[in-house]
Amino acid sequence: MNHYGNCLKLTIFGQSHSPAIGMTLEGIPAGFAIDMEKLQQFLQRRAPGRNTYSTPRKEADLPEFLSGLVGNVTCGAPITAIIRNTNTRSQDYESLRNTPRPGHADYTARVKYGDAFDAAGGGQFSGRLTAPLCIAGGICVQLLEQMGVTILSRIVSIGGICDNAPLLASTAEKEFPVVDDAIGEQMRLAIAEAKSQNDSLGGVIECMVCNPPLGLGDPMFDGMENRIASIVFGIPAVKGIEFGAGFAVAQMRGSESNDAFYLQDGQVATVTNHCGGILGGISNGMPIVFRTAIKPTPSISKEQNTVDLSTMTPTTLTIGGRHDPCIVPRAVPCMEAAAAIALYDAILENMKG
Amino acid sequence: MNHYGNCLKLTIFGQSHSPAIGMTLEGIPAGFAIDMEKLQQFLQRRAPGRNTYSTPRKEADLPEFLSGLVGNVTCGAPITAIIRNTNTRSQDYESLRNTPRPGHADYTARVKYGDAFDAAGGGQFSGRLTAPLCIAGGICVQLLEQMGVTILSRIVSIGGICDNAPLLASTAEKEFPVVDDAIGEQMRLAIAEAKSQNDSLGGVIECMVCNPPLGLGDPMFDGMENRIASIVFGIPAVKGIEFGAGFAVAQMRGSESNDAFYLQDGQVATVTNHCGGILGGISNGMPIVFRTAIKPTPSISKEQNTVDLSTMTPTTLTIGGRHDPCIVPRAVPCMEAAAAIALYDAILENMKG
Amino acid sequence: MNHYGNCLKLTIFGQSHSPAIGMTLEGIPAGFAIDMEKLQQFLQRRAPGRNTYSTPRKEADLPEFLSGLVGNVTCGAPITAIIRNTNTRSQDYESLRNTPRPGHADYTARVKYGDAFDAAGGGQFSGRLTAPLCIAGGICVQLLEQMGVTILSRIVSIGGICDNAPLLASTAEKEFPVVDDAIGEQMRLAIAEAKSQNDSLGGVIECMVCNPPLGLGDPMFDGMENRIASIVFGIPAVKGIEFGAGFAVAQMRGSESNDAFYLQDGQVATVTNHCGGILGGISNGMPIVFRTAIKPTPSISKEQNTVDLSTMTPTTLTIGGRHDPCIVPRAVPCMEAAAAIALYDAILENMKG
Amino acid sequence: MNHYGNCLKLTIFGQSHSPAIGMTLEGIPAGFAIDMEKLQQFLQRRAPGRNTYSTPRKEADLPEFLSGLVGNVTCGAPITAIIRNTNTRSQDYESLRNTPRPGHADYTARVKYGDAFDAAGGGQFSGRLTAPLCIAGGICVQLLEQMGVTILSRIVSIGGICDNAPLLASTAEKEFPVVDDAIGEQMRLAIAEAKSQNDSLGGVIECMVCNPPLGLGDPMFDGMENRIASIVFGIPAVKGIEFGAGFAVAQMRGSESNDAFYLQDGQVATVTNHCGGILGGISNGMPIVFRTAIKPTPSISKEQNTVDLSTMTPTTLTIGGRHDPCIVPRAVPCMEAAAAIALYDAILENMKG
Repeated sequence: MNHYGNCLKLTIFGQSHSPAIGMTLEGIPAGFAIDMEKLQQFLQRRAPGRNTYSTPRKEADLPEFLSGLVGNVTCGAPITAIIRNTNTRSQDYESLRNTPRPGHADYTARVKYGDAFDAAGGGQFSGRLTAPLCIAGGICVQLLEQMGVTILSRIVSIGGICDNAPLLASTAEKEFPVVDDAIGEQMRLAIAEAKSQNDSLGGVIECMVCNPPLGLGDPMFDGMENRIASIVFGIPAVKGIEFGAGFAVAQMRGSESNDAFYLQDGQVATVTNHCGGILGGISNGMPIVFRTAIKPTPSISKEQNTVDLSTMTPTTLTIGGRHDPCIVPRAVPCMEAAAAIALYDAILENMKG
Repeated sequence: MNHYGNCLKLTIFGQSHSPAIGMTLEGIPAGFAIDMEKLQQFLQRRAPGRNTYSTPRKEADLPEFLSGLVGNVTCGAPITAIIRNTNTRSQDYESLRNTPRPGHADYTARVKYGDAFDAAGGGQFSGRLTAPLCIAGGICVQLLEQMGVTILSRIVSIGGICDNAPLLASTAEKEFPVVDDAIGEQMRLAIAEAKSQNDSLGGVIECMVCNPPLGLGDPMFDGMENRIASIVFGIPAVKGIEFGAGFAVAQMRGSESNDAFYLQDGQVATVTNHCGGILGGISNGMPIVFRTAIKPTPSISKEQNTVDLSTMTPTTLTIGGRHDPCIVPRAVPCMEAAAAIALYDAILENMKG
Repeated sequence: MNHYGNCLKLTIFGQSHSPAIGMTLEGIPAGFAIDMEKLQQFLQRRAPGRNTYSTPRKEADLPEFLSGLVGNVTCGAPITAIIRNTNTRSQDYESLRNTPRPGHADYTARVKYGDAFDAAGGGQFSGRLTAPLCIAGGICVQLLEQMGVTILSRIVSIGGICDNAPLLASTAEKEFPVVDDAIGEQMRLAIAEAKSQNDSLGGVIECMVCNPPLGLGDPMFDGMENRIASIVFGIPAVKGIEFGAGFAVAQMRGSESNDAFYLQDGQVATVTNHCGGILGGISNGMPIVFRTAIKPTPSISKEQNTVDLSTMTPTTLTIGGRHDPCIVPRAVPCMEAAAAIALYDAILENMKG
Repeated sequence: MNHYGNCLKLTIFGQSHSPAIGMTLEGIPAGFAIDMEKLQQFLQRRAPGRNTYSTPRKEADLPEFLSGLVGNVTCGAPITAIIRNTNTRSQDYESLRNTPRPGHADYTARVKYGDAFDAAGGGQFSGRLTAPLCIAGGICVQLLEQMGVTILSRIVSIGGICDNAPLLASTAEKEFPVVDDAIGEQMRLAIAEAKSQNDSLGGVIECMVCNPPLGLGDPMFDGMENRIASIVFGIPAVKGIEFGAGFAVAQMRGSESNDAFYLQDGQVATVTNHCGGILGGISNGMPIVFRTAIKPTPSISKEQNTVDLSTMTPTTLTIGGRHDPCIVPRAVPCMEAAAAIALYDAILENMKG
């Protein structure tokens, strides 16, 4: 089901080529004034068609709010916003109904929903569904900022090219969200090269929640790791997530990986942050840090082997249409959105009791 | 909350030193005969005190079923089973109330629950709570086997020592669950060495669901990755999860990472399995493969820096008590349990509609 | 929260005067062709402005489907449909912000959401929100009919005038949904008289699910009574619900109220149906019967006592605007919608295991 | 499923003759000291075998707390308590497996769970499962009292004999919980007479939450009526529920049923309370009042018609075993328990945002 949240309830709907995509968000306190310009800027970071490394499909991604607001102020009712799908070319996809694209959900969608599945543009599996995620996330980002909580994110690597500079400030203003712009330039070149070869690249994104409230999350299945992972894997192409030192922690010794406590300005803090700000599923006040692995865009123009499902014979496929050679840059604000939603939901939940 | 599942509902309760720990599992079809001996063998793989690299605390881990069965056959009512906590030494922990152990949930538990938190043995954050997870998981393993679905798992690495041999058969019978026993011997030595230095090691575990039904899981927030991640992060010490090629996929090109479709015995299959058997959140019939990063046991006997919360002054701490120098071997069946629960829940859900 | 359902997930959004109201419905199997004309007819039974006893506010109540369909066939993605609010006159309500209408949610909305609550037209508490309920219900009615399950309903009483004739056939085609049209005529006169006195009337509605599948519902908190009650109380103005003999059963003896089993055409049936088709929360195959108490429309044009919340002084209020002198007739299809959603959700859930 | 609650999570498990019955309650704040003596007194009001109008089966109903407490103080972990089933006589029931008792869940349980259903003592459908409900409810009652919220209840009618005296004070200390003891004496005689005729009686119970917080509950499907109804119908034998004036409101005019607002000691109050303290699903600060219809105990010793399911032939049945001729008195604290759980859950939820 397309739901997320305990105290906050997010529902996402739409397909790539349906009349609209959108989201309903419940649980936002009444009386909050959404800064619509800021929200639009946030959505713009995800929007397609902005530069050479993203799909030429241009969508304004202008949300229309149908409910939940009086003016731009929340009134306590569920907030629903939609984005119309205007620039669709469904004929690009009809030929693919029987020849599933490798790396895409075409085959599993057909298995699950039968012939009635919506093949156009990837249907409900399209990366386009991250736009409503970013509407919800953009609202939560504003609510968090009001509490002094900020979320930073950046590209860590693309195609194996790594930006090892520490994340200390926002990259949101940058066209290409890396810390080290020289490395970013190399990444861009790598993307351009992959594109010229009708190929695509993946990468790793890092996200950091600064100044999170203490005590967020619950033991066992509702820890902050579980909560963040369970929304982040809703973003297409994510194949892995790690918190703090993550997979590297598996090679450490306990004496190295344990984050020693100390006092900083009278507050308990930790010397290192290998746990990524989460102990026993609960935030310890240090920055919450996670990284996600993004696979290369599966839509590539190279010829690929597949199966014709109507005749059950092998065949080949060359994908047309408009596709990003690397979705990593556009996925960066999606990670912030996911983190903001998970955080704000946990904050609401923490207020009870 | 300590809940998991959509069609299946798992509730876990208990603290390390409460009278008992246990679980309630709802949604299991009526009329299934649980093989109690097999279940006990499954639990035994997780149980402590079996060898030199696990805690000397000995617990029989014998579940008592309080409800849901008539004899050993499910009757449709919620299944509740408990394990009594008999071998507890709470005095080991009282001195730690004010001096949180680095890497443990002591500090965050205190922040969240105040002075009333149960400090004894880690309270509800204890790894001991994976015993009821394994009761539920052991039942689901039996239900899956009846459908021809099997789950294999193994240690991939400990302390940086890697077993790169492919996972082709069960390691469940082995005392040390690796594929390559010679590498396993090196891992054991590394654990023994770390223990002799009052230190601990972490590692990576791989889990593989063989012959999963097609079409399990749902788009967005209820995909198989989300479902598995959200239960796996309920196992203490897990700091990362990746599916299929995982973080390595981020360095591939699309033409390499895409799993080409072909026909095998008249069935659609993929040549490679970089997606780990999951496309668009939905199982494609190939083995579902994931790996998890386990941090080193945080309880080490070395002196560590911490803070005295009663006086808010820096202090040091040397942990006594009984602890595993490496919990990775005992966490292996926990991963199988988690995978079995997530799979069986998705199977039940798939039967509707 | 505005959610309902276990296997089906219904989300309703909108306020009386927001740009639109609508619903998202998840869990409907892919491949079902919605008969749009039939759906429109169903919605028409609830729509305002059709005759003298309903509000003169005219709304076409034409749903626009934004997602979940390809043509008129479900594709497995969440179905979202909206109805634009076009005929709104918010100025009717602004003066009421500080003087809550007796019997309405104005006061409790203000308490809950503060000054930001949407007062116009009753905001999210408006009976208008039953329109999206009827979209979802109308789809479920079609799915049930395909399985041979039909839902009948009728007015039992209005203003104390009772229609005691048994419910044997649909009243859906009638402009005034009673069994005994002569009694219906009396009810209409009573409504007209109340209207002429600036007053309003309530009543009782009966709903009957014919030929329900055996074995729907679960013990305890997920029984059919719980499920139906928990959606029916979402319809504004419902103040009571009873199943089968309901409150009358409290005056019977066990030997009278027990429904004896017998065989009818080789099937187990019961001689009477005092239990309303539900035993232990589970459907027994007999018709599921329930009745609901609907309070008189609280918006009346008579002067009423209230409190000015801005000055905290007593005041009086005479409500203008457009209101039904009796909403019972329009609530009849809403009960069918609620029953259809509850039933279909339980049917989906019953398919598992 | 056997779950209830949004912020509070209650899970109930057990069958009449399983080793134990019990409950897990999550969400109770850490640091609350449960008054065990008071809890035991609360449970005693529901316990069987206390007098001539209840079943002679004697059960101490002494809960054993397995988790969630340190001493008698909540620690934030899920609270699990069990009651052992000791006084069971399963042979009483085996003969009934194929001849379902009219008015019981025997038939529907068999339909739902097949031959594996637990027939002994009604299995999971037994009224005995209200004991764990009362453990959870008894804890919530104490939490509410601490906030100044009290819950009163009483028998309104049994077998048509009505106690019309207003409910102004607790009847909890009375052996027979009515307001007018003379009427209560008549009820007792009626029960004794029904018993002597191998028959049983039903009745109506009233429950009143005094001094509830303002603003509890949410619009639509999570209103206080929905919340209370959905837990109350989990109590076996409840066939109807009404709030405030309930079904009587359907015969009023709007000018009569509307509760006019006025100022009482500077607070907004209503002159009448026909709405039962709930407007738009949200508490308005007036007492929350509801009444439930309880059917006569279906287990009677009179011969009844049923069907032999093994041969599919008509047969008769005379029920032995131990049964209450009227469960209404023992159901009274169950209503308080249900109300307390629903209220406290809504209170926790209201604290967020």
